[in-house]
This record gives sequence, C-alpha cells and structure tokens, in this order.
Amino acid sequence: MDYFAESIKLHKKLQWKISTESKIHLETKTDLSLAYTPGVAEPCREIAEDKKKVYDYTLKANTVAVVSDGSAVLGLGNIWPEAGLPVMEGKCVLFKEFAGVNAFPIVLDTQDSEEIIETVKRIAPTFGGINLEDISAPRCFEIEERLKQELDIPVFHDDQHGTAIVVLAGIINSLKITNKKKEEVSIVVNGLGAAGTAIIKLLSLYGIQDIIVCDSKGIVSSSRQDLNTEKQNILAITNHEGRSGKLQDAVVGRDIFIGVSAPGVLTETMVQSMAADPIIFAMANPTPEIMPDLAYNAGAKIVATGRSDFPNQLNNVLVFPGIFKGALQNRVHQITDDMKIKAAESLAAYVEHPTAEMIIPSPLDKSVADIIAAAIR
Amino acid sequence: MDYFAESIKLHKKLQWKISTESKIHLETKTDLSLAYTPGVAEPCREIAEDKKKVYDYTLKANTVAVVSDGSAVLGLGNIWPEAGLPVMEGKCVLFKEFAGVNAFPIVLDTQDSEEIIETVKRIAPTFGGINLEDISAPRCFEIEERLKQELDIPVFHDDQHGTAIVVLAGIINSLKITNKKKEEVSIVVNGLGAAGTAIIKLLSLYGIQDIIVCDSKGIVSSSRQDLNTEKQNILAITNHEGRSGKLQDAVVGRDIFIGVSAPGVLTETMVQSMAADPIIFAMANPTPEIMPDLAYNAGAKIVATGRSDFPNQLNNVLVFPGIFKGALQNRVHQITDDMKIKAAESLAAYVEHPTAEMIIPSPLDKSVADIIAAAIR
Repeated sequence: MDYFAESIKLHKKLQWKISTESKIHLETKTDLSLAYTPGVAEPCREIAEDKKKVYDYTLKANTVAVVSDGSAVLGLGNIWPEAGLPVMEGKCVLFKEFAGVNAFPIVLDTQDSEEIIETVKRIAPTFGGINLEDISAPRCFEIEERLKQELDIPVFHDDQHGTAIVVLAGIINSLKITNKKKEEVSIVVNGLGAAGTAIIKLLSLYGIQDIIVCDSKGIVSSSRQDLNTEKQNILAITNHEGRSGKLQDAVVGRDIFIGVSAPGVLTETMVQSMAADPIIFAMANPTPEIMPDLAYNAGAKIVATGRSDFPNQLNNVLVFPGIFKGALQNRVHQITDDMKIKAAESLAAYVEHPTAEMIIPSPLDKSVADIIAAAIR
Repeated sequence: MDYFAESIKLHKKLQWKISTESKIHLETKTDLSLAYTPGVAEPCREIAEDKKKVYDYTLKANTVAVVSDGSAVLGLGNIWPEAGLPVMEGKCVLFKEFAGVNAFPIVLDTQDSEEIIETVKRIAPTFGGINLEDISAPRCFEIEERLKQELDIPVFHDDQHGTAIVVLAGIINSLKITNKKKEEVSIVVNGLGAAGTAIIKLLSLYGIQDIIVCDSKGIVSSSRQDLNTEKQNILAITNHEGRSGKLQDAVVGRDIFIGVSAPGVLTETMVQSMAADPIIFAMANPTPEIMPDLAYNAGAKIVATGRSDFPNQLNNVLVFPGIFKGALQNRVHQITDDMKIKAAESLAAYVEHPTAEMIIPSPLDKSVADIIAAAIR
C-alpha cells in the first residue's frame, strides 16, 4: 500500500481528525441556564475560592496539550507549525483512542526557547498536562526542564521519554531472552538527539553501566572538543574506559546496538563484530539503521525497529497514552524517573512469555495504557 | 429552580462539558499508518510546500479558540483564568451545539495586554479564528485591535460585537414596530464597558445619529476631565448637543434606553420622562436596570433583557456561533463592520412579524446560525 497517497485521501476526506464535542445537548432554556449563564457562575465562584476545584468542574481534569514548534517533525525536519499540525492532531487521536484522554494540538509560531516556555506557561491553566512533541535537540532539553520546574502539571517530552521507556522495556525482555544481566551487559547507542539522550539516561538509571555513545562524529569521548553541555553530561555516565573512534570501533564486542540515528549506518560486518547473540534495536524511521533480514543474516538474535511491518515494533504509542492517563487520574505533578522505570518494567512484564519475535506488546493492544497508567502514581 | 445548585450538580456529574473526539478509529496497523506515521508525513509535506493547505488537512479549518484572561467573567469580575474556565467551556458547548463549530477554551495566566497579544499570536497557527471573551475594558479594545491587525484569521471580541449585533437587530425591529426612523430616533446608552462601547459604535455606523451616553459618573460630555482615549472616541460620535448631567437628565425625551450597566439604575420616574412609547433594553445580568413589569407600568412599549425568563432575550448566542461558522466557511480574514451590520439586519429580518413581545428570535432556535453565517462573506 502507498501509505502517503492513501493518507492524503484519508486527510482530504476527514479534513480534520480531531473535533471537540459537547457532552451536553442544549434543547431547553434550562439546559442553557445550567451549562451556561446564569448557572455556570456557581462553579466559577467555587473555583475562585478554591483553585483545586478546577479539576472537579472543567476539562483540565482530563486534557493534555500536544505542543510543538514544528522544528523536528518525524523525519521531515524543521517544517514549522502549520505543517506539523497533522502529526500533532494524529497524536491527539492516539491519546483518545488508546487511553480516553482528551488531547488538543497547540502548534507554536515561535522557535525561541524562552518564548516557547513563556507561552506554554501562559496557556497551562486550561490543561492537566503538557506533552511536548517534535521540538529539536538541544532546545528540547532546556524547554522541558524549565517547564517541569515552573509548572505544577506534568510535562513530558514524548520523543525523549516515551521512546526511552519503550526501549528500556524492550531491553528488559531482551535480557531475559538472552539470559544476560543488566550489570554485565554492554550497549552502544548511536544517535544523540532527543531520543538517544533520554534512552542513555534511563538505561543508566536502570542500572546498566557499560554504555558507549556515538553521534555523527563518532564515539563521545573526553578527547572530543566539540561537546555541548548536554553531551558532556552524557559523557559523565558513559564510556568509562575512555574509548574513542568511529561507530565501527564502538560496536566491536558489544551485546546491544541501539540506533536512533540514520538509515543504513549499521552494516552486516559491524553486526558480525559484536558479541555473541547480538541484540539490534534499529529505530531510524522509516528506513532503519539495518534492515531486519540483513541483521539476522549477520547473526542477530533479536531485532526491533520502529516499523509496523516487522515484528518488535518499538512505538511510543505503547507509552504516552498510559503515562498521561495515570498522571491525570492520580493528579501527579511530575513524571519522575522512578515512574518511567516502573512503566518500562510494567510494559515488559505485560509480555508473559517474551520471545525473540515478541519482546514488546503490539501497538494496537488497547489494554496497555492501563498497565502503564498503574505505574504512574 | 435554583440554577446555581443545579448547575453545580450538572458540572459534578459531567466533570468536563467539552471533550475531544477522534473522527477515525484505530483498529488495524493500516489505520495507524494512515492517521499517524508513516502516512501522515505526506499532508505535512504538502502543507510545508503550500501553507494554505493547512485548511484542507487539519482542524484549523473549523476550530475557534475561546480566549480569556478571566478578568471580567460574567458579573463576577476578575476571578482569574481557572475560575473563568467553566464559562469558556460553556461557550465552546454553544459553538458546537448551535453551529457545529469546534471550539476550545484557552484561559491565560496573564492579564498583561502585550503578553496576551503575544501569546494569542503564538498559538494562532492551530486555529481558524479567535473569540476573545470576558477580558475587561479598556484592555479588550487594544488587544482586539492589535490582534486584528497582526493576524490573518478573524478575531472577534464577543462581549463587544456579539452584544452590539444582537442589540442592533433588536433596535431594527423595535423601530419597525414603533414606526420610527433610524435618522430621527434618539437613544441613551447607559454603561461604557466593552458592550456599551461596541453598541454605540455599531448604532452610529448603522446611521443612528442622536445618541447620548452615560457612564457611572453621568453623561459623557466635553466638560468631563476624566475621559480616557476610548471615551473621547465615543464622545466624538455622540452628544452632539453638548449636554451634561446625570442619567436622569439624559433620559428625558429619549425614544430608547439601552442599559449595559447595573441592576435597578433606571427608575419608573425616568421611564415616564422619556418620549412616548419608550423602548427599554435593560441588559444588566442577572438583575436588569429595571424589571420588565415596572417598565411596562411606567409606559414602556417594548422591553428586552438578557434573561431567559422574560420575552425578548437579547443573548449573544444568537450571533457568535453563526459569525464564526460563516467566517470559517468562507475563510474571511476579518469580521468587518459591514458584516456586523448585515448580520444584525439578517437576524432582525428572520423575525417575519416582529411584535413588542417578539423583536428577536429565541436563543434556542438552531436555524439562526445559518442565517447569520450567510451574512459573513
């Protein structure tokens, strides 16, 4: 199927994928007097006296803003807010379909970090949570960090943490299958954008000690002069042996490759140079770092990608709907690292008998959101 | 019925009145691939090439932001954003129920005019129109004016223009009933907030020449030293005879009283001092400037209020849903004065045989939105 042509047809037919619906129908003067004036003055008055009651009487209780500046949309790069809107609306569809969470897209006509922070803070009173989406690195790190500090509702950059949680869940089950221990396993992560950075941090917090990281210039090491603050932070928790070189040097003898980088950068020769039974997470989209058949030919034990047409699809939709469902139900103010690890463990445990072809549930499994939600409290 | 107690019950039961709904259900991998990745990249690419296509593929085509800073909510005053949210959500219910327009509430955590303007501009890419709501005067004038200049989507402060349009429609039919001409009729407007100011401007544009205005300090005249810029603008189009004094002086010999002010300020004696067959629009909410029975006792020919429990309810819901429906359907960039007058004339003409008890359609008449929409092109 030509997904692009079919998607255009679908979008032309629907025109918009998300609509707002009224939960009350207005037929009589009484309906109007209760849903609107004069009756509506009373919930207003109660909230004015006790701001917490906004959760009892308004959509803040169950509504997430999907916020983007359109600077890093899918594989399309910086296409600005209007062009990013179909993705953000799609994300809102997923929130509703998989977790029953109301979500509304807000695409911003600015790519200045301070202005984004300022704007999100100003519109926050409507929302119970903020899902940041497709904001380019390294701006995304500061924007999320500042918003977490300055808002009392949960803020979650899904490209970072949604991806990190689903990857950690996949790693947990891959270790079970290959009988490896987190304290002993060695990992190479290729790609140091939003997703790569968050994956490394979460794997490290989970207790994986031996991680080497590559960006497009090679291994992140102390001999590099070009590391920004974020990459220096990553260096502090990786590459303890002080190795340097290119990706082909980094993969030698490693148990696990995690790619959030570019099509085709992992060759069969590189896979052959890894430790026995290598685990390959090749998540570049739409074309992975190595195609699954090539990886298996080169000896891979487990292969996962971001694609729906291969087994082991590592898809954020397994994570973010449940994260916000749980956060809203339990009114948590922040998604903590502990919650993220717990969410990954719950997601992994939901696969009762993990196999090399089934390390992660299907993205279409609508029970997953409740499993994740239960971890967020 | 105790509207306040019943409204609290309703709000507790519903919790939120507006939800977001997906127009597509995700059951298969194909659904996911078309509504979201990878297919959704194609509408994004097309919009990136031609920004106008955002109207073909996204909710921008049919979605209005209901924006408020909570500074002038109903009769409750400055209660801040969270406490204003039940009203803004209610407004979104009306948009959907009366015109099928998607509307989403955005309450702002700032009351600084520049910050409000800035924020609305930054979130504008998502929306096809901006309905400003319950922002206090005089800030509302500058905010609306600037946003109209700086955005290419329609911006409409409903408290001003929605009210002005419904009042003008009521006046048009009242003149028919009383056989008076717009060029000869004399009007006193009491109250110079957002609504009063817009009413005066629209009546003047419509061709009514003899208007006197009072605020809480009395007649707006050149002898006053306390007039801000907005009030000086109003003075330029009113009080051509240079009268001064109090409301009781202003009403003497006048044909029409329009109150957007405070409960009980118009006495029976004042009504008796007006011209024969006086027309009284007493729109203070919930308690009018004079109760209808008292006004009739004092000789009023026509009485209209903002209340649903008396005839002739002058309610904005007759206007704003259709205004935006028409604006979105025809992609107009601004709601012009001509459109407002045309909307008022259409609304008045929709009452085939106006009588003293029926100068305006019922707010529950769901055909009205299309009548208004047809005027906005």
